Amino acid sequence: MEISVIKIGGNVIDHPEKASEFLRAFAALPGYKILIHGGGVLASRIGKSLGITPQMVDGRRITDAKTLEVVTMVYAGLINKQLVAQLQAFGQNAIGMTGADGNVVQSVKRPVGAIDYGFVGDVVAVNTDLLASLISQSIAPVICAITHNKQGQLLNTNADTIASTIATELAKSHTVNLFFCFDRAGVLMDEKNDESLIPLINEDIYEELKRDKVIHSGMIPKLENAFEALHKGVNHVWMGLPENLHLAVKGKNAGTTIQSLKYGLF
Amino acid sequence: MEISVIKIGGNVIDHPEKASEFLRAFAALPGYKILIHGGGVLASRIGKSLGITPQMVDGRRITDAKTLEVVTMVYAGLINKQLVAQLQAFGQNAIGMTGADGNVVQSVKRPVGAIDYGFVGDVVAVNTDLLASLISQSIAPVICAITHNKQGQLLNTNADTIASTIATELAKSHTVNLFFCFDRAGVLMDEKNDESLIPLINEDIYEELKRDKVIHSGMIPKLENAFEALHKGVNHVWMGLPENLHLAVKGKNAGTTIQSLKYGLF
Repeated sequence: MEISVIKIGGNVIDHPEKASEFLRAFAALPGYKILIHGGGVLASRIGKSLGITPQMVDGRRITDAKTLEVVTMVYAGLINKQLVAQLQAFGQNAIGMTGADGNVVQSVKRPVGAIDYGFVGDVVAVNTDLLASLISQSIAPVICAITHNKQGQLLNTNADTIASTIATELAKSHTVNLFFCFDRAGVLMDEKNDESLIPLINEDIYEELKRDKVIHSGMIPKLENAFEALHKGVNHVWMGLPENLHLAVKGKNAGTTIQSLKYGLF
Repeated sequence: MEISVIKIGGNVIDHPEKASEFLRAFAALPGYKILIHGGGVLASRIGKSLGITPQMVDGRRITDAKTLEVVTMVYAGLINKQLVAQLQAFGQNAIGMTGADGNVVQSVKRPVGAIDYGFVGDVVAVNTDLLASLISQSIAPVICAITHNKQGQLLNTNADTIASTIATELAKSHTVNLFFCFDRAGVLMDEKNDESLIPLINEDIYEELKRDKVIHSGMIPKLENAFEALHKGVNHVWMGLPENLHLAVKGKNAGTTIQSLKYGLF
């Protein structure tokens, strides 16, 4: 079967009207679909109210025991359940999950190297049977950025990585398209100008854009991640605005499509 | 099939070692099983840290919008996911859910009468098909005390009522036993003495105990709830200590069994 794996970023989560508009569109999308979400600013805000100061090392958040409790409450509790309740209202049956639920995404605690990230997980396995079973019953899994190590420990996990790992694992037996919805029209020549959209990126274009510093910092891991998914059998990767997702799912290019030159060899 | 519906109270949730011991026993129970849990003192504690003062009317908690956010975070996030992660560690596959997930428990907001309870739900429907499908895949649903109205609103809902409604709905097509684990050995003649356990209660015994004021206050709705479940087709209702659940599931009377004199007429 053909499956859309869709990841939404904090910019959707943080704005109730945007989230509602997105969820209405998600519910109306044809075919089988899985939603992955992170946290947005809500976790930091609630953490602060609870007296927990975010600890950052090299711009990356450290997840200590208290922070893990906050992200578990906010991602798996508040955000996940509000998303699911709204999808139900739009007529889309959905089940909210962490990686622990149904053992759907298993990870290992990141080894302590130069930096100790704390309770952060790197994905090692996906229960594709359960995901396939749910979507074939027209139930959309809504998966948040919390996984587990199958030894009782919950772990904070990057939502982009969860999305691409789920997509690549499902791609072993299904046709999978991967969609990243964020706060830009796609990958841009000039990051301040949505008009400067680059509609298509392949490995050659990517190397050129990277060399010319058009693509830099946070976009590099996002695109590396996308190519890795393509090389592992994902059909298409798309990045763009949540409000253009319905066009992208229909194959219209209303964002940036990432394609592999090696496509077809796999 | 034969299904055990098991509800655990705050006394288990609030003590990590007790919870862990209980979950190990739950994982080892034979047969099909569903776990229902409430919140314990954690929700009040986190609410207080966030500056939310519990509002009580006639000893009952009022759920305003902020309180609903807290209970959603704590019940559906922190507690539910810790329970699920631990069950996975004990080799028991499980999926944590609110009533919104898979539309498993639908409710209506309680009408405003003499008291406005706020965002509190009364159960109106249970998706028994999904529950039966999960348990037949050896996945235990772990359901917390949050439901939804299918119009996008999450609602705080009594966990005892969720447990007995799920049990009675499943009893329409399965053999269902209902177990309430709490902080007493069962129903007691003298509530301060676990030795004064009443092993068996039927309607006649119940009326007598109520008349003699042995059963009063909080135990009355619990037993009314139990008899209602029995009259609606539940096979057995049991109340006792979580550590005796494994005996009760095997039919040994290590708590109070509630039985109906009308049993067999249904």
